Amino acid sequence: MNYTAIFEDAVEMLRREKRYRVFADIERIAGRFPHALWRTPAGMREIVVWCSNDYLGMGQHEGSIEAMISAARRFGVGAGGTRNISGNSHQVVTLEEELADLHGKEAALVFTSGYVSNQTGIATLGRLLPDALILSDQLNHNSMIEGVRQSGREKAIFRHNDLDHLEDLLRKAGRERAKLIAFESVYSMDGDIAPIGRICDLAERYGAMTYLDEVHAVGMYGPRGGGIAERDGEMGRVDVIEGTLAKAFGALGGYVAAAAPVVDAIRSHAPGFIFTSALPPPVAAAAQASVRHLKTSQAERDAQQANAARTKAALIGAGLPVVLSQTHIVPVIVGDAERCKAASDMLLAEHGIYIQPINYPTVPRGTERLRITPTPFHGEALIAGLTEALVAVWRKLDLPFQPMAAAAE
Amino acid sequence: MNYTAIFEDAVEMLRREKRYRVFADIERIAGRFPHALWRTPAGMREIVVWCSNDYLGMGQHEGSIEAMISAARRFGVGAGGTRNISGNSHQVVTLEEELADLHGKEAALVFTSGYVSNQTGIATLGRLLPDALILSDQLNHNSMIEGVRQSGREKAIFRHNDLDHLEDLLRKAGRERAKLIAFESVYSMDGDIAPIGRICDLAERYGAMTYLDEVHAVGMYGPRGGGIAERDGEMGRVDVIEGTLAKAFGALGGYVAAAAPVVDAIRSHAPGFIFTSALPPPVAAAAQASVRHLKTSQAERDAQQANAARTKAALIGAGLPVVLSQTHIVPVIVGDAERCKAASDMLLAEHGIYIQPINYPTVPRGTERLRITPTPFHGEALIAGLTEALVAVWRKLDLPFQPMAAAAE
Repeated sequence: MNYTAIFEDAVEMLRREKRYRVFADIERIAGRFPHALWRTPAGMREIVVWCSNDYLGMGQHEGSIEAMISAARRFGVGAGGTRNISGNSHQVVTLEEELADLHGKEAALVFTSGYVSNQTGIATLGRLLPDALILSDQLNHNSMIEGVRQSGREKAIFRHNDLDHLEDLLRKAGRERAKLIAFESVYSMDGDIAPIGRICDLAERYGAMTYLDEVHAVGMYGPRGGGIAERDGEMGRVDVIEGTLAKAFGALGGYVAAAAPVVDAIRSHAPGFIFTSALPPPVAAAAQASVRHLKTSQAERDAQQANAARTKAALIGAGLPVVLSQTHIVPVIVGDAERCKAASDMLLAEHGIYIQPINYPTVPRGTERLRITPTPFHGEALIAGLTEALVAVWRKLDLPFQPMAAAAE
Repeated sequence: MNYTAIFEDAVEMLRREKRYRVFADIERIAGRFPHALWRTPAGMREIVVWCSNDYLGMGQHEGSIEAMISAARRFGVGAGGTRNISGNSHQVVTLEEELADLHGKEAALVFTSGYVSNQTGIATLGRLLPDALILSDQLNHNSMIEGVRQSGREKAIFRHNDLDHLEDLLRKAGRERAKLIAFESVYSMDGDIAPIGRICDLAERYGAMTYLDEVHAVGMYGPRGGGIAERDGEMGRVDVIEGTLAKAFGALGGYVAAAAPVVDAIRSHAPGFIFTSALPPPVAAAAQASVRHLKTSQAERDAQQANAARTKAALIGAGLPVVLSQTHIVPVIVGDAERCKAASDMLLAEHGIYIQPINYPTVPRGTERLRITPTPFHGEALIAGLTEALVAVWRKLDLPFQPMAAAAE
């Protein structure tokens, strides 16, 4: 049995399909985000990051950095155990209170990542609900898909944001059967938004529970950063809200917020929560500082939306094939894996602009794209530089411009 | 459908079985470990933690704290993305080099936790090996069990550390079939050790791959902290070594180390690695400082072993039912869930000693225990205090002393 050859083949297949990933070796610069240093074999180069999920630049927020530093000095760098066995620091306890308050729920539970929140959270909810049917949006994130799979329950996938299809499936399942609707508020690759209120209408009509992933929305939408459900006034109707501390809140970790019995059941039964070390106090402290800051500060949200709107306008004005979204996510379609990678490589090498190519399986083949995420720190000068660089790359690679926009030139 | 009642029942069942967990609200004190503050409704109390997995106290190591603080100031508090999409910090890259070197492997890959390393690592290895049979030790950790389950491959469980049984299963599977032996070096609840070399002998004889979890050994065994496999001179024969950064290294995260094609295949195919935010630079920096320190410093390992030996001797001398192990883990058997919880509560309330009860399903019913983990910072005075407190609790609860030891009194 030649094991090495098997693993070499598994990687070689990705190379053949032009899906092999090479990670850029980046050094962030606190205080100068989105500027960063890129280590190349030829030496260090300064670049501008345009694909960060540190959506509001909170990773360099002074209050968050100071919270981490102060906690490291006072409590040390690690939790020292699982939540149950000596790892339950006071910093995680207060973080959970902060998150429960953010979403107007009785309780919250913190995990080591948003991925784990979904995976073990959905799996546990499914296992606890006898004979449950899980209704899952077709474009749900891998972490939710894995959670559904690991629940061992029957699943029904509804077409993306398709209320009629969802209603069909709910009706077929019947009122008496336990049902969990799992969906996202902002879908990360297109930046489109779920009709949360109308999904809750259906859930109420057919007696289903709702589980909403707000990882691309918390911190950024709603008057206190509670997400799209807060913005839409629907937070109280969603049973479980899942979020992340690693995107707009700039740190690490994930969480669910819900009624106390639901959170207590997950806390008591989810293996991915029970059997793993807790978040270190400094990480919890940094995350809490961000969450708390964004509850009252609207400036970051306003600046992000303004820069996203400016970026969309500039790219559309230049005839680039932007997917129009209602959110801060600005996808520009290339439509081919190899050329998408080439565009990304050229942007970095020739223009010092870092935008990772998004290829299959993250998006369907034929919709390969550059996914651009303007933050409050991507101001007019950077937007102009981005636009110029993209146009140069598009010309050099002979990628299609949008006819409509091209006509307007 | 009354969902709330279902979740209330799921929790109530644990209360009835005396397995409901209440997390002690603890504040660690850097520089004074294992002393900590316990928040009770009646106010703060100073306690001594005797159940930490911060096995060497590296969570308060000055070099690690300074590394975290310096990285937070320079790079901020978060990674800002997945490894592939803007989250690949230079601090994680060098941490992986440090870990590959620690285990004498070509490469290493860091995950957000040891749990995730096992879960997505084993699942991915299994999926990539056509028709693989996974041979799994009966006492493997939940994260390994979940990994095996999620691989979708056939599994064969061998009796704990039973070489004959393992050989039977290997022989039945035949040389031609892909086989992965998954086991641990130190089993955390009894503190016993796997015969790594002899398992490698079998793996070679029958053409199997080996996957070794060293989370309770890295940092603590071997001349450079490479674990039991390093101590035994077997590191080069084990195909995949999995470890944690959250126990002896005092921080957060997990990893695998192996030949480059194996690591690249996991890196390229494991969903729990691909679709999740990277470790923040300050966490990676703190972990790397600990790993590097323990490669050359023997003092922590020696002091831990000395204090573990002293603790065992003192408890045995007092007639307490210690499970004798070859490691730093000192289990004291109570044998009943309710009295185990009562002993733990009494130790905390009356003696300021924090040792979490270990009940089913973490250990088999009838073997409920207090699991004591002496560190370099649990010196003679603390050991004397622990012994006295345990004896007082044992008498008050009328728990059985060991006849042999009792006779020696």
